[in-house]
Amino acid sequence: MLAVEIIRRKRDGHPLTVPELRAFVNAAAYGTWPDYQLSALLMAICIRGMTPDETATLTRAMADSGTVFDLSAIPGVKVDKHSTGGVGDKVSLVLAPLAAACGAVVPMMSGRGLGHTGGTLDKLEAIPGFRVNLSEAEFKSTLAKLGVAMIGQTPEVAPADKTLYALRDVTGTVESIPLITASILSKKLAEGISGLVMDVKCGPGAFMKTLPQARELAHSIARVGKLNGLKVKAIITAMDAPLGRAVGNALEVAECLETLRGRGPADLRELCLLFAAEMLELAGIADAARRAREALDSGAALEKFRDLIAAQGGDPSVVDDPSRLPQAASRATVVTGRSGFVSEMDAEAVGLAALELGAGRAKAEDRVDPAVGILVWKKPGEAVRVGETVFEIHHNGIGLEAATARLNLSFRIRDQAPAATPLVLEG
Amino acid sequence: MLAVEIIRRKRDGHPLTVPELRAFVNAAAYGTWPDYQLSALLMAICIRGMTPDETATLTRAMADSGTVFDLSAIPGVKVDKHSTGGVGDKVSLVLAPLAAACGAVVPMMSGRGLGHTGGTLDKLEAIPGFRVNLSEAEFKSTLAKLGVAMIGQTPEVAPADKTLYALRDVTGTVESIPLITASILSKKLAEGISGLVMDVKCGPGAFMKTLPQARELAHSIARVGKLNGLKVKAIITAMDAPLGRAVGNALEVAECLETLRGRGPADLRELCLLFAAEMLELAGIADAARRAREALDSGAALEKFRDLIAAQGGDPSVVDDPSRLPQAASRATVVTGRSGFVSEMDAEAVGLAALELGAGRAKAEDRVDPAVGILVWKKPGEAVRVGETVFEIHHNGIGLEAATARLNLSFRIRDQAPAATPLVLEG
Repeated sequence: MLAVEIIRRKRDGHPLTVPELRAFVNAAAYGTWPDYQLSALLMAICIRGMTPDETATLTRAMADSGTVFDLSAIPGVKVDKHSTGGVGDKVSLVLAPLAAACGAVVPMMSGRGLGHTGGTLDKLEAIPGFRVNLSEAEFKSTLAKLGVAMIGQTPEVAPADKTLYALRDVTGTVESIPLITASILSKKLAEGISGLVMDVKCGPGAFMKTLPQARELAHSIARVGKLNGLKVKAIITAMDAPLGRAVGNALEVAECLETLRGRGPADLRELCLLFAAEMLELAGIADAARRAREALDSGAALEKFRDLIAAQGGDPSVVDDPSRLPQAASRATVVTGRSGFVSEMDAEAVGLAALELGAGRAKAEDRVDPAVGILVWKKPGEAVRVGETVFEIHHNGIGLEAATARLNLSFRIRDQAPAATPLVLEG
Repeated sequence: MLAVEIIRRKRDGHPLTVPELRAFVNAAAYGTWPDYQLSALLMAICIRGMTPDETATLTRAMADSGTVFDLSAIPGVKVDKHSTGGVGDKVSLVLAPLAAACGAVVPMMSGRGLGHTGGTLDKLEAIPGFRVNLSEAEFKSTLAKLGVAMIGQTPEVAPADKTLYALRDVTGTVESIPLITASILSKKLAEGISGLVMDVKCGPGAFMKTLPQARELAHSIARVGKLNGLKVKAIITAMDAPLGRAVGNALEVAECLETLRGRGPADLRELCLLFAAEMLELAGIADAARRAREALDSGAALEKFRDLIAAQGGDPSVVDDPSRLPQAASRATVVTGRSGFVSEMDAEAVGLAALELGAGRAKAEDRVDPAVGILVWKKPGEAVRVGETVFEIHHNGIGLEAATARLNLSFRIRDQAPAATPLVLEG
């Protein structure tokens, strides 16, 4: 099948056939088309779009381009959660052990942070010794023993997605609902799960800036998942301010430990309980909401996380003594110039400030400093007096000035408390 | 200026600015964007289109990416003709000396054949010794002396076009009116001409298959030329059957010599006289049509061609003795199975048959056999008796069977003579 013929058909707005889509995906996985042909077709897809059937075929082909885990030997319904990424979004670290503590099986495969958003793998690696690069055998045995394992995407999983993802980033073809859908779901199909809770973040700090965009992606993922036999519950949640109060890897782990003790920030706890209940429902576990709450408040989820840390080579003593997590050498603060209420906070600016400190990556090959980050002392709606601390910066001598400048511009103080905004927008 | 930002703007349907278009063109000329970014933008342009102003800027930037000839030291108005390419289209070889014989200055820069259409350079090179790769100094001195020079596009002319043209061919982005316009006109602007006759071929044997397509290209070239200060006369001509009776390089040269003697096929003579008159009008030369006819019938154009051959290193004795042109070793014929009138002839099939014999190139790097080709003994509208020759094949033992098969399917015989179809469709 000629690459140029396939490209021309999509250029002219025709749906591509199954063999055409498979030829494209295999070419991406095995390098048989030059990059300039892949990128021409990506652009044509980006502009012309794809039907749900096309997207479903593309997704399945991308999953099939590499290893697809067969977890049938492990009893229980396998479910996972995926988020489109936000600032301070550490939900997975609480949720995976929580859902497992309630009887779901959670084979969670996550990514690293890029740009202003963090990644689950970076957070896990802030725990001394924690290994995210388990072999397939280790992954399966951990999952069989604990009902949860948390790993990175191996090179064998969806290799076509790796090629296309890298190309999209540099060819202006990131913003395509079918391509985003296929990228996310191909990796989830490869996990061998049967149910997925999809957290579509929406707002200035998220990839989807507006509700219509977020809705389009949520619908696409639900529909394409279903076409591939995957039950999907898509939920649109707000990403205006950072989630919780911690932004930065070790700081976020500490906040997760608090939340796993039944404490922690209200917004983080709310989302973890909501998503856990949805995962349990997908897994066919009765009385999901109550069960999740009990597992969080009883410490059962915390014990599951302790076991997970130990099973994946980490130091489980951090659970009882979070001061064993990496600590930044220095602290600094950003204070208010006036009294009032924090009315708005730009999550993206806070994420970029953390990036300046070294908490994240500007480029995929950057190294991350697990210790640095930002604690948000005052969130939108909270009262503040002049001179009070809004942000506490944990730094190691890098990027303090730039981070401070960004944080100073990241919030507003008004006389009146802002109207409360819901955390869950739809779903 | 970030490549991705420029690509995204065109992806979203915005017109590109002058600096953005120049950044793109310079990136193509100097290799500063990877091919996958160039091809992503080409696809976005292909689908989203360009305004005439954008296309004019693109065209000028492509011309400026390399050498632009300064012919101001040579007296006279510089004019040229360009064709979108057809089968048996040998007009340039007659037209360039003809217009020069009438007082126009013709700095003609041509291309090679690709696929089923031939190229002027290949035809000229069928003349023993003829050099199309003149240096800039040789080009100018020939032009100053004779009023005509015929060369190939040097590597220094419009290098951005070379990169983009090669990429378009393999990325499904050939069929874009703005990109075709910019490719053609950038090279014509680089010639240093002030007037251009544009022959837009239309029909099954041409790149533009339908009249609306041909019209769109003709209008685009006229408008974008004007925006760049170039007077353009665009004429849409039919490309159903081959032009003239010869297809194949040396055979076509011989036919041109016939035409330059005031004989030759009627359709070829008609187009040469029409285009010559238009070129002379663009050059401000009075009484253009009569002058052109006289120069053809008096032998003045033929003498100009003889001088041109000599000046460019060729053997001028071919003018008096066309048998000195390369001759194929063997002949074969395709005859009719019935009597009647030739009603249709598929120029593309005849061009592809010539390609099978080695007269053209399937790929840019293929070598051409100047001697082989096809003579069309019977053209549409002509009566034929059963067993009469329709095609005479000149071959060197390669591709005879395939060529014969194609030719057998390339025409139809009907009882009634077909309605006469005009050669000039619009303009």
